[in-house]
Amino acid sequence: TIVSLLEQQYVQKSLLKGKKVLVTAGPTREKIDLVRYFTNPSSGKMGFALARQAKALGAEVTLIAGPVALPTPQGVHRVDVTTADEMYEQVLTYYKGSDVVIKSAAVADYRPKQVFDKKMKKSPGDYTVEMERTRDILQELGDKKEHQYLIGFAAETNDLEHYGEQKLARKNLDAIVMNNISEQGSGFNYDTNASIYLTKHGKRIQWPLMSKDDLAANILQQTSTELIGEDS
Amino acid sequence: TIVSLLEQQYVQKSLLKGKKVLVTAGPTREKIDLVRYFTNPSSGKMGFALARQAKALGAEVTLIAGPVALPTPQGVHRVDVTTADEMYEQVLTYYKGSDVVIKSAAVADYRPKQVFDKKMKKSPGDYTVEMERTRDILQELGDKKEHQYLIGFAAETNDLEHYGEQKLARKNLDAIVMNNISEQGSGFNYDTNASIYLTKHGKRIQWPLMSKDDLAANILQQTSTELIGEDS
Repeated sequence: TIVSLLEQQYVQKSLLKGKKVLVTAGPTREKIDLVRYFTNPSSGKMGFALARQAKALGAEVTLIAGPVALPTPQGVHRVDVTTADEMYEQVLTYYKGSDVVIKSAAVADYRPKQVFDKKMKKSPGDYTVEMERTRDILQELGDKKEHQYLIGFAAETNDLEHYGEQKLARKNLDAIVMNNISEQGSGFNYDTNASIYLTKHGKRIQWPLMSKDDLAANILQQTSTELIGEDS
Repeated sequence: TIVSLLEQQYVQKSLLKGKKVLVTAGPTREKIDLVRYFTNPSSGKMGFALARQAKALGAEVTLIAGPVALPTPQGVHRVDVTTADEMYEQVLTYYKGSDVVIKSAAVADYRPKQVFDKKMKKSPGDYTVEMERTRDILQELGDKKEHQYLIGFAAETNDLEHYGEQKLARKNLDAIVMNNISEQGSGFNYDTNASIYLTKHGKRIQWPLMSKDDLAANILQQTSTELIGEDS
């Protein structure tokens, strides 16, 4: 009936009403000098889809975005960052006040130890870049977790479930989305993902290749179910 | 008068008629593994503007583009590449048949020596990336030059004219465009550039901050003047 359809839409629209959702998206850039840097092919599409869907479900959404060429979803508070360090600062700033935190950004895990102010002059022959670890943001969020529902992402080519279980436990996550980047059409820069969803309560869902918008809707549907379960 | 205006437009439209123009644009990406690479912030905007303007002046244009999110200018033959090696192969393929070659791509000058097929697992502590030089495409084009009019680009923060003169001679170029990337609004990812234009015949033009489309029109205007000078 029309009434139940409207009711359903109303329920949908308010699944995350009153919840503060923090989403991170995109890559980070780690400079060697003014014109050279290390990065990864993250397009930010997954995180932007999550922010858009969370907003559509009634949440108050903050989106911390690395350098990507995507428009801000309507009604979403966007904070732009470039480096892993800037991402760390912003995420930690918003973490305490968030109910749901979805870390879909592909933050660089290494950065050059030395950064040159000007453009480094090239010289013949090889050269060596000394890299150091950046701070592990997800680990820190897991360690500092209070009331937040914390969702991580990982991209792997093999042994998805195995690596997923390990990361879920090690980082003290509530759920993790494992993207299979060896599957054609899945992962970085595609509009679709093929994923496995794991929760700390032992839920296992295998999602076939679908649009990042549909995947975002599925993830948030699961999240809201889990949140209700935890509240009751 | 209307007639002279039409004449002028006709002359404009045919300044490069019958000429084959090869333009390179954008960055290249040099992989460390499946999800990590080394690159630079080139947006490809300058090269795409040059391709569009060359086409508007009647040339037959081939555009070899690194990974950028830009639409192909109408009527331009586009070839997409990712790495410095692929750029080298494609540029050398088209070089012989070209009359004007404008190398505005920001090709990586170093690449990781070792590339991992899968995603490298991180481990605690530092690590070292061994980098090796890529082939110097512009040097090779200069060395192999026959009838081609060869234009290089460089981005510098200081001593533009000094570095420009050196590069012009060393690489056997006909002209070079030196972008001042220390000037606000100029260079990578901006829509404007502030530049110095130098030719092997001693021409020196300083262009103030202007749109990349205007800069492209100025460069090609100069080029066509030089070509007429060389033909006569």
